[in-house]
Amino acid sequence: MSSGNSFGSIFRITSFGESHGPATGCVIDGCPAGLPFNEDILQRELDRRRPGNGGAATTRREADKGEILSGIFEGKTIGTPIAIIIRNTGQNSADYGELREIYRPGHADYGWDAKFGIRDYRGGGRSSGRETAARVAAGAVAKTLLAHYGVSIIAWTSEIGEIKAPDFESPEFSAAEIERNEIRMPNATAAEKALALISALRKEEDSTGGIVACRVSGLAAGLGEPVFNKLDAEISRGVISLGAAKGIEFGRGFDAARLKGSTNNDAPLIGETNNCGGVLGGISTGGALEFRAAFKPVPSIGREQRAADKNGAERQIKIKGRHDVCVCPRAVPVVEAMCAIVLADALLSQRCARL
Amino acid sequence: MSSGNSFGSIFRITSFGESHGPATGCVIDGCPAGLPFNEDILQRELDRRRPGNGGAATTRREADKGEILSGIFEGKTIGTPIAIIIRNTGQNSADYGELREIYRPGHADYGWDAKFGIRDYRGGGRSSGRETAARVAAGAVAKTLLAHYGVSIIAWTSEIGEIKAPDFESPEFSAAEIERNEIRMPNATAAEKALALISALRKEEDSTGGIVACRVSGLAAGLGEPVFNKLDAEISRGVISLGAAKGIEFGRGFDAARLKGSTNNDAPLIGETNNCGGVLGGISTGGALEFRAAFKPVPSIGREQRAADKNGAERQIKIKGRHDVCVCPRAVPVVEAMCAIVLADALLSQRCARL
Amino acid sequence: MSSGNSFGSIFRITSFGESHGPATGCVIDGCPAGLPFNEDILQRELDRRRPGNGGAATTRREADKGEILSGIFEGKTIGTPIAIIIRNTGQNSADYGELREIYRPGHADYGWDAKFGIRDYRGGGRSSGRETAARVAAGAVAKTLLAHYGVSIIAWTSEIGEIKAPDFESPEFSAAEIERNEIRMPNATAAEKALALISALRKEEDSTGGIVACRVSGLAAGLGEPVFNKLDAEISRGVISLGAAKGIEFGRGFDAARLKGSTNNDAPLIGETNNCGGVLGGISTGGALEFRAAFKPVPSIGREQRAADKNGAERQIKIKGRHDVCVCPRAVPVVEAMCAIVLADALLSQRCARL
Amino acid sequence: MSSGNSFGSIFRITSFGESHGPATGCVIDGCPAGLPFNEDILQRELDRRRPGNGGAATTRREADKGEILSGIFEGKTIGTPIAIIIRNTGQNSADYGELREIYRPGHADYGWDAKFGIRDYRGGGRSSGRETAARVAAGAVAKTLLAHYGVSIIAWTSEIGEIKAPDFESPEFSAAEIERNEIRMPNATAAEKALALISALRKEEDSTGGIVACRVSGLAAGLGEPVFNKLDAEISRGVISLGAAKGIEFGRGFDAARLKGSTNNDAPLIGETNNCGGVLGGISTGGALEFRAAFKPVPSIGREQRAADKNGAERQIKIKGRHDVCVCPRAVPVVEAMCAIVLADALLSQRCARL
Repeated sequence: MSSGNSFGSIFRITSFGESHGPATGCVIDGCPAGLPFNEDILQRELDRRRPGNGGAATTRREADKGEILSGIFEGKTIGTPIAIIIRNTGQNSADYGELREIYRPGHADYGWDAKFGIRDYRGGGRSSGRETAARVAAGAVAKTLLAHYGVSIIAWTSEIGEIKAPDFESPEFSAAEIERNEIRMPNATAAEKALALISALRKEEDSTGGIVACRVSGLAAGLGEPVFNKLDAEISRGVISLGAAKGIEFGRGFDAARLKGSTNNDAPLIGETNNCGGVLGGISTGGALEFRAAFKPVPSIGREQRAADKNGAERQIKIKGRHDVCVCPRAVPVVEAMCAIVLADALLSQRCARL
Repeated sequence: MSSGNSFGSIFRITSFGESHGPATGCVIDGCPAGLPFNEDILQRELDRRRPGNGGAATTRREADKGEILSGIFEGKTIGTPIAIIIRNTGQNSADYGELREIYRPGHADYGWDAKFGIRDYRGGGRSSGRETAARVAAGAVAKTLLAHYGVSIIAWTSEIGEIKAPDFESPEFSAAEIERNEIRMPNATAAEKALALISALRKEEDSTGGIVACRVSGLAAGLGEPVFNKLDAEISRGVISLGAAKGIEFGRGFDAARLKGSTNNDAPLIGETNNCGGVLGGISTGGALEFRAAFKPVPSIGREQRAADKNGAERQIKIKGRHDVCVCPRAVPVVEAMCAIVLADALLSQRCARL
Repeated sequence: MSSGNSFGSIFRITSFGESHGPATGCVIDGCPAGLPFNEDILQRELDRRRPGNGGAATTRREADKGEILSGIFEGKTIGTPIAIIIRNTGQNSADYGELREIYRPGHADYGWDAKFGIRDYRGGGRSSGRETAARVAAGAVAKTLLAHYGVSIIAWTSEIGEIKAPDFESPEFSAAEIERNEIRMPNATAAEKALALISALRKEEDSTGGIVACRVSGLAAGLGEPVFNKLDAEISRGVISLGAAKGIEFGRGFDAARLKGSTNNDAPLIGETNNCGGVLGGISTGGALEFRAAFKPVPSIGREQRAADKNGAERQIKIKGRHDVCVCPRAVPVVEAMCAIVLADALLSQRCARL
Repeated sequence: MSSGNSFGSIFRITSFGESHGPATGCVIDGCPAGLPFNEDILQRELDRRRPGNGGAATTRREADKGEILSGIFEGKTIGTPIAIIIRNTGQNSADYGELREIYRPGHADYGWDAKFGIRDYRGGGRSSGRETAARVAAGAVAKTLLAHYGVSIIAWTSEIGEIKAPDFESPEFSAAEIERNEIRMPNATAAEKALALISALRKEEDSTGGIVACRVSGLAAGLGEPVFNKLDAEISRGVISLGAAKGIEFGRGFDAARLKGSTNNDAPLIGETNNCGGVLGGISTGGALEFRAAFKPVPSIGREQRAADKNGAERQIKIKGRHDVCVCPRAVPVVEAMCAIVLADALLSQRCARL
């Protein structure tokens, strides 16, 4: 594998930036010419990822102002790469001095040193969740392209700890509610319970995992490439490449392992069931694309934990600074972004499938 | 995305072949020179994927004889691409004539037509599980390379329907047992129960899903690239690109969504727990790499099902021929192969990480 | 750079095979579905590359029978990779025993050992001109695709030693003549002179260099990508990747270095001049694409030459076997192939340039 | 082919930016960790590309201040992508208003519109030579990496119009002189003559082509990949991807077309001759790598020329603004950069060639 800061093939993004370096950003290559795009559309998505004032989120304030450096002329894409940067501001490197010598539990610190022999220890450097700002910026372009072709994506927090939000099919599910609460759950009652859980965990200086669900509508049949670049394979790569993601499933997912063929098979074209989650053999069926991703608890907690120093000696550590209690609410726009980037790539790829 | 018949970057495979065409095969590019490899090593892996005589497997007989066309000289790799072909024999196209006009439930038939406007309808063409023979061939090279560096991979059927095999940590787990039973379960009693279930389902002309688990030992810390080419992201892509795979999880996986940080975090270097499954921030920790993949029930069942024809009209269909009742036993070597290919790529990539 | 046995991005070929191994071949990925193609079309191109009976060519006889293993169904491409193999027959490894210990002048022998520490010394192994059979096979598909869109490519031997064929613009130029003489010159008189030169050199156990010219008509304006994947940059890579190629120039080429802007500039759209050779800023202008490639003299000559053995000691060597005196006549279909592959890729890429 | 704003595989650059947009820049992915690099090293190379005060160069003043946004921590690379931006300042879009409707001779204007249907007409947009600033920035990293391994690259203007500088082997050749004169010729007398020619052409509102030569020393044998990614093939792609480049040749190049094998062959390891230019079969021989690139006359000239407008009607045009008379002096650092980027990639690739 190459160094791996690019993703996609025809619609291809390249990301860069450490948490406490001068800037984070990305280059989006391969977006067709003629698409209306500007810094307002960009900022709307970046704002969704930005930490809020309470709830599940860290209180680190980042202006997260996106600046477009290229690729847009008179309000439209012109077929050249779109470079976007987001200056890092408000970070406090002093918080991280201790980490120069210590490998945190649940973080890539040790692996990073084993790999490169050197690392930017401030705030996780390139392993920081800050890196996802670049993904959201690229996703803003991808979503705009998809919207132009009638494809829309929504994601939401479907579970936090033991608290579950209603499924999409349930009458309790409200898409409009998602962006109204800090948890991004599609139901106000569930969101309230989740907020209470978050509050309690924050007091305990602990954190929790959760699940983000995603649903794409308006997708034509025939997208995705049949072998290694299957639609679900590429989305899996995109989503599992988020630092805290530990699992993904499509349609009935792990439950399908316990089903019979006669129960699990969807009758094609008829559309009564969608157990497959809108993808068969890696190609979109024309039904809604549906998947769920599991996120582990945020590893940065205030509680004392066992860690190790550079010499392998055990050390006790309390992670300072303000960190998210659950990554899911802020992961929602990032999951949408990764999904959008894959779909934009698949959509363009499809143009070359036939004479 | 490009047409997608290649996988990997430095260690890169390209696969080809339709189920009922002349041959299936692959080209493995980027294997270092000097590695002992030959047709015996290759055949051993191909034989593991070959359908058995009973149990879970289809009774289609394929010689599945692998032939090496290039890249090996005097018993060693020489740095040039290794091309391997496996002639398709014993297939009976007559079985599939009806499928010219019908889209089968649970298969890519409709999506394929929507994509390409044309397809090889015989036995699924390129969407057939037959395609995985090429993956296993490439995996044989990758596994040989990994073995040279002390890395070993085992996979097994961990669940079939409601029947669960013991976990790796359990005293009931026997690695030696895996290849002894047709189910590839690491415990004889569990395997017997699973065989009985398979038998019953075969009589009912039905099928079942299951779960394959995989474990890698001997892996150094520091493998995998930190952003999009995370080790787990690449494995996810590789595994979900198997036609019947519907989910994947690493370490505690979906269970981690319900845990707290204080419980889920592993203390680095100490090695008492491995909740992360051997990968943090996409980089190997030095612990065992562990993941599980969910496979849906085989969609080809003898029972009558609702299907659709090319005009979108509903049709009843009974799938003829002999098909696997559960894909897991034969998926085991394929999951190992995909995992090996990713790890071989990561291992080479690591050579370029430092000055 | 990766191991480098693939070429192209959307229309992408992967080649394999050593000169004296079991087979040479390629996988063509990304050809759109629906294109009529078969082994007859393939064989026609392979036959053009095959050594003739006299003239400039080696007398090694190769059946060079191309076999299509996948990707074609009922006479058409189906969007899956097209694998083609050509069995190596008639090679006599005994001729090459001596080369196990000696590095030939003008060959990659020493560099290969320095790189891989091991090599297939029989007939140059993968460095042999035999490798170009795979390019011609892939080019046959590319040319068929281009022809479908009205693009045609012709190449010819324009110079051998001091003998020059007339330019395309000259009344002496005859496209029909090219395939009529063994030299592939577009003029019978020039071809005769060249044949006489070749004959003389064969007697002297020597060889000569030459120039191949190529011209593409029917190309729309707008093909090629503006920065690194410029049309001329990609063709340069493709052509210079032929072992004996030492230079390439487009339009006026090196002569343009001595011209003034007022003389060299072509008025756009007017089409009176084509000094640029049909490409400006890497994008096709709509005029004929024109380039010339310089090939060095065949390094394998019967005359005694100074060589070196594995210990670096000087050795005298006379290359045995029958080798081409000039590579150009057989390079003609290979140059066409490489040009076709680049153009096919550019043509598909163009589909993604706009909304 | 993909959109093509990336170059290289393991050492991989992605460039962006239009001439009159906010910034130009690049992302360098795959540079090994631990390499000392900083903005001073970067700026030194950027300054070499910057237009001078007289001689051959445009008088447009650009601060061309490079800013490193990521990938460097405490003065060293850390294995993460290095993003560099150069703000565009001092450009005067007003000069270009007329070009909205007119296709300039010798430029990509028409092809660009045919391709994308939209373009940034200000100063050529992305087709501007301004784009090469990003290449030089990336080249600064590549050159630093190469220097670490003892590889050094020099390029120079070897011909301008009819004026030739002495060859590298000549006693008149002075490497030290190259950076002392505005023409970048390796001999003061030749440089003076060339300056006089440039002056005369500037008065005539005309321009001239020229040739840049490049020589790499310290390169080990064994670099480059043997088939499509030959060292010379990749350099050809890199150099011909410069907008004004129209030809390239290695070693004896086009002259080799007129030589005999007995004259052209270099005896391996002995090193008395280097007709091949340091590369055989695409792999470095251990000798100096030598190539020459032909650049066409600058197409932007003050003289009246025939052009075409968007409707295809002929128009007369005088290009306003101050443009270079000959591109070669400023192309020198860009050619070095492209060569360095290819070699850095080859050097890393070589790490994966053997067990």
